[in-house]
Amino acid sequence: MPSEFEIIRRYFSRPARNALLGVGDDAALLQPEAGAVLAVSTDLLLEGRHFARGAQPRSLGHKALAVNLSDMAAMGATPRWATLGLALPAADEDWIAAFAEGFYALAARFGVDLVGGDTTRGPLCICVTILGEVPANLALLRGGARPGDDIWVSGELGGAAYALHGAGGAAAARRLHEPEPRVELGERLRGIASAAIDVSDGFAQDLGHVLERSGVGAVVHYALLPKFAIDDPALEQRCVLAGGDDYELAFTAPQAARAEIEALSGSLRIALARVGSIQGGETKLQLLDVKGKPMAHAAGFDHFA
Amino acid sequence: MPSEFEIIRRYFSRPARNALLGVGDDAALLQPEAGAVLAVSTDLLLEGRHFARGAQPRSLGHKALAVNLSDMAAMGATPRWATLGLALPAADEDWIAAFAEGFYALAARFGVDLVGGDTTRGPLCICVTILGEVPANLALLRGGARPGDDIWVSGELGGAAYALHGAGGAAAARRLHEPEPRVELGERLRGIASAAIDVSDGFAQDLGHVLERSGVGAVVHYALLPKFAIDDPALEQRCVLAGGDDYELAFTAPQAARAEIEALSGSLRIALARVGSIQGGETKLQLLDVKGKPMAHAAGFDHFA
Repeated sequence: MPSEFEIIRRYFSRPARNALLGVGDDAALLQPEAGAVLAVSTDLLLEGRHFARGAQPRSLGHKALAVNLSDMAAMGATPRWATLGLALPAADEDWIAAFAEGFYALAARFGVDLVGGDTTRGPLCICVTILGEVPANLALLRGGARPGDDIWVSGELGGAAYALHGAGGAAAARRLHEPEPRVELGERLRGIASAAIDVSDGFAQDLGHVLERSGVGAVVHYALLPKFAIDDPALEQRCVLAGGDDYELAFTAPQAARAEIEALSGSLRIALARVGSIQGGETKLQLLDVKGKPMAHAAGFDHFA
Repeated sequence: MPSEFEIIRRYFSRPARNALLGVGDDAALLQPEAGAVLAVSTDLLLEGRHFARGAQPRSLGHKALAVNLSDMAAMGATPRWATLGLALPAADEDWIAAFAEGFYALAARFGVDLVGGDTTRGPLCICVTILGEVPANLALLRGGARPGDDIWVSGELGGAAYALHGAGGAAAARRLHEPEPRVELGERLRGIASAAIDVSDGFAQDLGHVLERSGVGAVVHYALLPKFAIDDPALEQRCVLAGGDDYELAFTAPQAARAEIEALSGSLRIALARVGSIQGGETKLQLLDVKGKPMAHAAGFDHFA
């Protein structure tokens, strides 16, 4: 069985292209762009909670990085570097090689360097920290939504949660296991969007964070929400409104930006749906059905609920 | 039971003094010093491997940050920001409050901001990523040791491992559970030390990394190693040479720096022992006993061995 150092050397030491020093010392050394602001985020993925026992290691490697890239997208930041804390039940080399493959394949697509980390034995647990850069004053915050702004959603909602119900076939499974982080979209929304968040815990809850931080309310038309195809209407509602793991962007922008956002949708080939608008007054999300009547809506995912 | 968001709000949202944006958005936003190089390191601590079930949460909060601060010290970097990934078996508020207390107390001493993280339910697991700054070209690397350099060690070795054997009383227990990271020493060694590492896996193994990276050998006199008081000579050797968790600095420096290093020891009130010298030729650590005869020495800690 390879040692901790052998595992790192064999599977997690690909050369860092954008770092002064990568894996192999007490810390990595990075040179941020002069004047750029650094965006930093950490996510923890645990077996039995964020993914099932026996999950495909290649998908896990992809997803562990994807959920962090999605946080960069939600800030409008360009991801640059990542570290990886990895606890493994055993040093199964096939598993590790496949995990590393999934991780590095996605990292390469976005020019992200894995620059450090820690490997140990324990219950399967993956902790990725991502570092990105964003020009000063152009980061997309949760707190910038203003009354009158439009609310937009990328892609489709509900597919990942539908896959968790064992439905939706390969398309839903891909949403769940190999989500596509909206990094380019986030970058292009700099200076356009007034607020942004990624939909990781469910649309209603995540948009709720934007409303809370911005001190505004919202009206959203359920019919306008972009939806993964789900037959059962009640299940559709749960998956679309409260299903986590979508990793789409929900963002707000002034009405004056509509044409620009539609052009962006075309040039990036990402569906962008205008689903409602920001209101003054109470910090509350009002969901309207086809007839314009208020709908009850489920809460999102809480890891301690 | 408080929700994930309540836990973060109540216990992990102290204002960040040195960040543009701390906990509460998709990512933290930081403004590194112009021209500084960023040092980044991640450590994973697991129950049953890095600490015993039932470990004091306040000490754990301290130690989780201390081991990362120690990595900054070993790079000569000034720690600035940290993120925390925390998996908890249950949302026990007393436990969380004590953990946060230990973490923030140490963070405050070194001016480190907790700027982000992730909290979830699962087997107890702590993943801290630390970010620090170091002036360009002054980082202390493992690869800079040159033949003729002295080898130095801070503090005392073996206390933490002795505590793991249930011996050494409160003094040893403190080394194990609340190690003191040598941050100031690391900063002051910029421009003086030629190479540095922190002693986390055992002196012999950790110095071995320096030798490997530098492509040099070393002669170390066992009698000169600074030792925690341990009665049993065989146990002393194991604890001093292969005991992990000391978090002292082992560093090399040209002979011309001796007076400067001794003055530093006085001004920082940290014992600094000169224990041997770097040699050309084979990448090998030769340990000599009191009579100048080669000693066998145990390997350090490998998490998969």
